[in-house]
Amino acid sequence: MSIYLDWAATAVPDPNIIKASSDCAIRTFGNPSSVHQTGQQANAVLEECRIRCAAALGVKKEEVFFTSSGTESDNIVLLSLLRKPSRGTVLVSAIEHPAVLEPAAVLAENGYKAAYLMPGADGIIKPSTLEKALTPDTKLVTVMAVNNETGAIQPVHELAAAVHNFAQHCGHKIHFHCDAVQGTGKVKLNFADPNIHSWAISGHKIRGPRGAGILVLKNTIQTMVRGGGQENGIRPGTENTAAIYGMTLALEKALADLDKNSAHAYHLMDTLLNKIATNNSYQIIPENRKPGDKNYSPYVLSLAAVPIPAEVLARTLDDKGICVGTGSACSNRKKGQSKTLTAMGVADNISFSRIRVSTGSTTTEEEIEQFIKTLDQESGILRKALR
Amino acid sequence: MSIYLDWAATAVPDPNIIKASSDCAIRTFGNPSSVHQTGQQANAVLEECRIRCAAALGVKKEEVFFTSSGTESDNIVLLSLLRKPSRGTVLVSAIEHPAVLEPAAVLAENGYKAAYLMPGADGIIKPSTLEKALTPDTKLVTVMAVNNETGAIQPVHELAAAVHNFAQHCGHKIHFHCDAVQGTGKVKLNFADPNIHSWAISGHKIRGPRGAGILVLKNTIQTMVRGGGQENGIRPGTENTAAIYGMTLALEKALADLDKNSAHAYHLMDTLLNKIATNNSYQIIPENRKPGDKNYSPYVLSLAAVPIPAEVLARTLDDKGICVGTGSACSNRKKGQSKTLTAMGVADNISFSRIRVSTGSTTTEEEIEQFIKTLDQESGILRKALR
Repeated sequence: MSIYLDWAATAVPDPNIIKASSDCAIRTFGNPSSVHQTGQQANAVLEECRIRCAAALGVKKEEVFFTSSGTESDNIVLLSLLRKPSRGTVLVSAIEHPAVLEPAAVLAENGYKAAYLMPGADGIIKPSTLEKALTPDTKLVTVMAVNNETGAIQPVHELAAAVHNFAQHCGHKIHFHCDAVQGTGKVKLNFADPNIHSWAISGHKIRGPRGAGILVLKNTIQTMVRGGGQENGIRPGTENTAAIYGMTLALEKALADLDKNSAHAYHLMDTLLNKIATNNSYQIIPENRKPGDKNYSPYVLSLAAVPIPAEVLARTLDDKGICVGTGSACSNRKKGQSKTLTAMGVADNISFSRIRVSTGSTTTEEEIEQFIKTLDQESGILRKALR
Repeated sequence: MSIYLDWAATAVPDPNIIKASSDCAIRTFGNPSSVHQTGQQANAVLEECRIRCAAALGVKKEEVFFTSSGTESDNIVLLSLLRKPSRGTVLVSAIEHPAVLEPAAVLAENGYKAAYLMPGADGIIKPSTLEKALTPDTKLVTVMAVNNETGAIQPVHELAAAVHNFAQHCGHKIHFHCDAVQGTGKVKLNFADPNIHSWAISGHKIRGPRGAGILVLKNTIQTMVRGGGQENGIRPGTENTAAIYGMTLALEKALADLDKNSAHAYHLMDTLLNKIATNNSYQIIPENRKPGDKNYSPYVLSLAAVPIPAEVLARTLDDKGICVGTGSACSNRKKGQSKTLTAMGVADNISFSRIRVSTGSTTTEEEIEQFIKTLDQESGILRKALR
C-alpha cells in the first residue's frame, strides 16, 4: 500500500461520495434544462446543490455557478475582460497557478497590460506591494488564497480591501478575483467578503469527483465561452448533476471538518518541520517557515535535499511506495523552473531540488514518520552516489 | 415507470458504464500529470482511452483531445479564431446548436463577419448553397452532422469537399468544423475524412457519464482557454479520467452496435411516421419526411399538433408519464422561436406547436405504441378544450 503525499495535485476521493455521485448519475439522469419530470428531478438536485453550496460557503445561491473545474472558473473571469470595449491593466500575482497565469497571458496578447505582483522571500504578496502597483486603468486584480507550491496563505481579504479603497478613491470598479482551489476547506476564508468579487473552487481537491468546480461570482459578467445558456449564461453545456452533487457533499464535509482536519494537519506538518529543521541536509522553502506558522497552509510543504534533483528524489521515493509532488502537477511534465520559487528569489540549486509534500484528512502520523525515515535513507544514498 | 422519449437532450445512461466509471474514479484517482505511480496509473488509463477512442473513430490517437463536453469542443475550435492575427468570414449553418451559434456570435462581435447558411425546406444545407457563400476571406465553415431538432442528416462530407476544392483554388486554408454531438454512434460518419478538420463529440448523448467530450482535431490550434497545458494545450484542467473512461466504453459500444441500433430505431420511427402520416391531426416537420428516409436520423422526429402549444402538449404527456422535448433542451427554458424551424421556413403556428420525440437503444415498440395512443387521446381532449 503506497503512502500518498500529493493531495495538492488531487485528493484521495471519498469512496462514499463517489458512490453517492454515481447513484445520482443513474437515478437523476435527466437534462436539467428539460421541462419534463425526468429533467425537473435533475434540476431539483442541481438547485438543491446550489442552495447547499451557497450555505456552506456563506454566500447567496445566486452567486454560485457550477463549472467543470477550478481552471474553468479562473478562465471564465479572466477571459470575460476580452468582451469589454476598453482595455487596461490586470494585476496578477507572480505566484498564481497556470490556470490564472495562462489566461492572463492571453489578455496581454489582446490589448491588456499584465503586471505581476512579486511576493516577498516568504512567498506572500504584501498589501503594500499591491498598493504601489494599482493604477487608474487597473481593471482586475487576481491573487490566490493559498499557493499550491509553498502553502503560503495570501492575505486576500486585506489585499481586496486595499483594492476597494483605491477603486473608491478613483471612482471606478476593479474586479478582485481569488483562485481558492488550494484554500477551500483547508484554511478559513470569508467567501462573503464584498471586496472579493469572484472565487474559483475545485471539487476534486476536496475529495469530490473530478469534473465539477464552482465559480462564486458576485456580479454578472459577459463570458467568452458560450452555448445553451446554462448557469445563467456563465457556463454552457449540460450540467454535470452527478459530479456537482458529489462536490456538494465534499464541500459540506470539508468545511464542517475544517478545524478538526486543520489541527490534524498542523500536527503532521509540525512533526515534519521539526524533524527537517533539525537536520541540515534539507532546506525548507521558504527557509523561515516555522512549526505552527499560521501564514502557511498546514497541508503543503516545499523542501529540497540539495544537490539531489527533485525528479530523482521523487522517483526514488516512488520506488519505495511514497508519492510526492515535484511542483505543480498541472504543468504536465513541462520542464522549467518554478515561477513561484523564482519570484520568491529562491536560489536555482534549491529550486532544482525542490519536492512538494502535501497531506490530506486521511494522512496518518505513521505515514509521515515512514516518509521521513525513507527520505533520510534514500537522500543519504543519493548524496553519496552524487559525490 | 415513465416512457423517456427525450434521448436527444440526454441519453439514459448505461448503468454498467456508470459503475465502471465510478470504480475507475476510486481505483485510478491520481492526477495524470503527476510523475509518481498513482499519477502514472491514471495517465495509463487516459492514454489507453485515447487509443481506444481513436480506434473506434478511425482516427489517429494524436487527433483525439478529451474535453468536458460537446459544447466545450465546439467553443475550443471557434474561439481559437480570436487568437489569429487577421480576421475574415465564418460560414455557419443557420441550424447549428447554440454551442456553435453562440461562440460564432462572439466572433462576430470581435471583428469576424459571420454569415449563415440557410437550409432548404427539408432542413438540409445544400452543397450549392455553401459554394455560393464561400469567399476568399472565409476562415472557417461549421455545419453539424445531424440536426438536434429535426434529425436532418447534413451532407458534411460533400460540404467539406466543396470547401476543400474552393480552398485549393484560392491557395489558402479554410477550417471545416463539424458538431457531431447528435450524429456520433447514430449515423455513419467518416471521422478520418481529411477535409473535415475537427469534430465535436459528447459522452452523455451516447449513454456515457456527463462531463466528458471529445474534440477530434487534425491540426493544432491556438486556444483561448488556457491553464496547466493538459491535452497538449488544447483543454486545460485536471483530466476527468473516470468520465473519459466511461465515455470510451460508451463510444465503443455505440459504434459497434450502430447498425443493429439503427435498424431498431428505423423500425420505431417508421411505426411513428406511418401512424402520424395517416392522421391529419399532426404535421411532421419537415412535411416531406417519409418512413425509411435515409436523409434523417431515425432517432429524432419533430411533429406538431396544431393549434396545441408545444409546452401544453409536452406537459400533458408528462402528466401521463411520457417525456418528450420541446426543442433544444439546451436553450434552458428561454422562450422564443426555434432558429432551425425559422430557417427552414416552417410556419409560426406549426413551429409553436412543435414537440420533439427522440429515442434510444432501449426504447421499445410498446413504448412507441403507448406514446401514439396517449398522444391521440390527449391531443383530442386538448383540441376540444381549445375550440
